[in-house]
Amino acid sequence: MNTTDQPDIEAVKSYLIELQQTICNALAREDGKEDFIIDEWQRENGQGGGITRVLSNGDVFEQAGVNFSHVSGGQLPASATAHRPELAGSEFQAMGVSLVIHPRNPKIPTSHANVRFFIATKENEDPVWWFGGGFDLTPYYGFDEDCVHWHSVAKKACQPFTEGTYEKYKTWCDNYFYIKHRSEQRGIGGLFFDDLNEEGFNKSFAFMKSVGDHYIDGYLPIVQRRKNEAYTEAQREFQLYRRGRYVEFNLVYDRGTLFGLQTGGRTESILMSLPPVVHFEYNRQEDPGSEEEKLYNYYLKPKDWV
Amino acid sequence: MNTTDQPDIEAVKSYLIELQQTICNALAREDGKEDFIIDEWQRENGQGGGITRVLSNGDVFEQAGVNFSHVSGGQLPASATAHRPELAGSEFQAMGVSLVIHPRNPKIPTSHANVRFFIATKENEDPVWWFGGGFDLTPYYGFDEDCVHWHSVAKKACQPFTEGTYEKYKTWCDNYFYIKHRSEQRGIGGLFFDDLNEEGFNKSFAFMKSVGDHYIDGYLPIVQRRKNEAYTEAQREFQLYRRGRYVEFNLVYDRGTLFGLQTGGRTESILMSLPPVVHFEYNRQEDPGSEEEKLYNYYLKPKDWV
Repeated sequence: MNTTDQPDIEAVKSYLIELQQTICNALAREDGKEDFIIDEWQRENGQGGGITRVLSNGDVFEQAGVNFSHVSGGQLPASATAHRPELAGSEFQAMGVSLVIHPRNPKIPTSHANVRFFIATKENEDPVWWFGGGFDLTPYYGFDEDCVHWHSVAKKACQPFTEGTYEKYKTWCDNYFYIKHRSEQRGIGGLFFDDLNEEGFNKSFAFMKSVGDHYIDGYLPIVQRRKNEAYTEAQREFQLYRRGRYVEFNLVYDRGTLFGLQTGGRTESILMSLPPVVHFEYNRQEDPGSEEEKLYNYYLKPKDWV
Repeated sequence: MNTTDQPDIEAVKSYLIELQQTICNALAREDGKEDFIIDEWQRENGQGGGITRVLSNGDVFEQAGVNFSHVSGGQLPASATAHRPELAGSEFQAMGVSLVIHPRNPKIPTSHANVRFFIATKENEDPVWWFGGGFDLTPYYGFDEDCVHWHSVAKKACQPFTEGTYEKYKTWCDNYFYIKHRSEQRGIGGLFFDDLNEEGFNKSFAFMKSVGDHYIDGYLPIVQRRKNEAYTEAQREFQLYRRGRYVEFNLVYDRGTLFGLQTGGRTESILMSLPPVVHFEYNRQEDPGSEEEKLYNYYLKPKDWV
C-alpha cells in the first residue's frame, strides 16, 4: 500500500504489463486457433519503447491488437502542453495499454479499451500527473442484452467510486466517439475519462485499474454469446462497410492516433487499430425496417442502457 | 476571348462541367462494362451543390469517382482565411472537379486529378481569386515507361507557360503527397499548384484548362497498356494493402478532404476518393529484391522522370 499517496510509476507500469498479459491470454483462449505474437520495440531516440501483441487470422478474431508502451522525453512537446503551458520543457513519461479487437463474425461487436498514465517532473516542483482511459463497443448488428451487459459492467467498474462516476464518463464517451461529418456515434459507448488526479494518486490509480480489470468481463461474455451465430454474406458485407467508419474516426478524429502519428510514435503499433479488411461504398442506403437501418436509428443513438 | 482579363466565373463553370463529362465518357468507354451514375445534389443551406458521378464494379475500374461542385457562401469560414485575413467575411464561390480512379488490376496505377477556382468578393473592392489543382499517379507495381509517359504529359501541359513551370509544380506535388508518419511518398507525383493568379485571369485559367485537358492523355494510355496484364492473388493482395496508404493520406493529411469534412461538405462526395476494398496488416515486410520492395525503394523516391 502506498501510504504517502505519491505517484508510484513502477506500480503503474507493473499493472499495465500484467493487464496486457491477462487480456491477451483471455482472448487467445477464446479464439482457440491463433495466439498473439510478441513484438518488443524501442524508440530510435532511446526514449522508451513498448510491447506490441497481435493475433491475426484467428477463428473468432480476425485481428486483435493489444499494445503496451512506455515513452519518455526530456522536453514535453508543445502539442501536449496547449492546455497546461506550465508543463512546457518538463521531463515526462507516458505509459498505457491500448487495444482494438476486430472479430470475424459480424454479430460480435468490435471493442476498444485504453488505460494510460502521464507524469511530468520539473526540478524542485511536485510532479504533475494524471490517468485516462476507458472502453467502448461498436456493434454491427445490435442486441439489447449485449448493450445492457456492456454498460452494466461499465457501471460496476465505477461503483466503488464517487457517485455519478459512471454517468459522467458514459456521457464523455458518447461525446468523444462521435463522427462529426456523419452525425453518427461510432458505437454504443461505454466509459471515457481523462485528466484524472483530483482525489490523489491511490484513488485515481485504483479507478484506472478497475476500468482495465473490467474490460474482459464486459467483452468476453458477448463474444461467447455471439461467436457461433450464423451470418449471411450480406451481413458480412455490412460489417466490412461499417468498419470504414472505424477507419474514418480513428484517422480523422482520434486524439491518441493523431498525437502518436504527429509525434513520431511507432506507426505500426498505432495503426494496428485499423480493421484488416474494409469496404468503402458510395452513398450506401439501408432498407427501411432492416436490422442494418436499426443500427443507425436505434443502437447508434446514445441512451441509458442501465 | 476575355479581353478585359476580369475573372469570368461562368466560363470557368462551363469548362469544369464539360471536363467532368469528357473524363467520364473516356473512362466509361475504356471500361466497356459499367457507366457512371449521375447524382445531382444541393447543399441543405441553399449555398450551392454539385454533380457526383461514380462508376462502380466495372471490368477495368473497380471504382471511379468524378465530382463537380460549386459552393458559395456569404461569409468565408475562418479556416479558409488563415493565410488571407483580409478575406474574412467576404462572399465567396468555390468550384472544381476532383476525381480518384481505383482500377481493379494491380498493374494499373490509381490516379487522382483536381482543378479548382476560388473567388471572394467584397463591395467596392476588386475580387480576390485564384486557381489550383494538379494530377498525380499512385502505382502498385512500377513500370518506368508509365512513369516517363505520365511526367511527359505533365510537362507538356506546362509547356506553353513560363519556363520552369513543370519543375516547380512537380516538386510541389512531391512535397504535398508525402505520408509523413511513413516517411513515404503517396505515389510517383505529377503536378500540384495553388494560389495561381499572378499573371492575370486569362493566363491562369488557360493553365488550369491545360492541366484538366491533359489528365486523360496522361492516364488512359497507361490503363490501355496494363489492363490485360495477368496478375496473381499475391499481387492483388499487395494492391489492397497499399490502398491503405491512400486512406491514410486522404484522411490524415489531404487538405481538401479535411476542409470539406470540417466545413460541412457533402461527405459521400468527399469520401468517394476512398478505395472500395482495403486491407490493413500489421508490420508487413516485403521480400528483398521483390517487385514490391522495388516500389518503396525505387518508384516511391522522387526522381526526374523526363
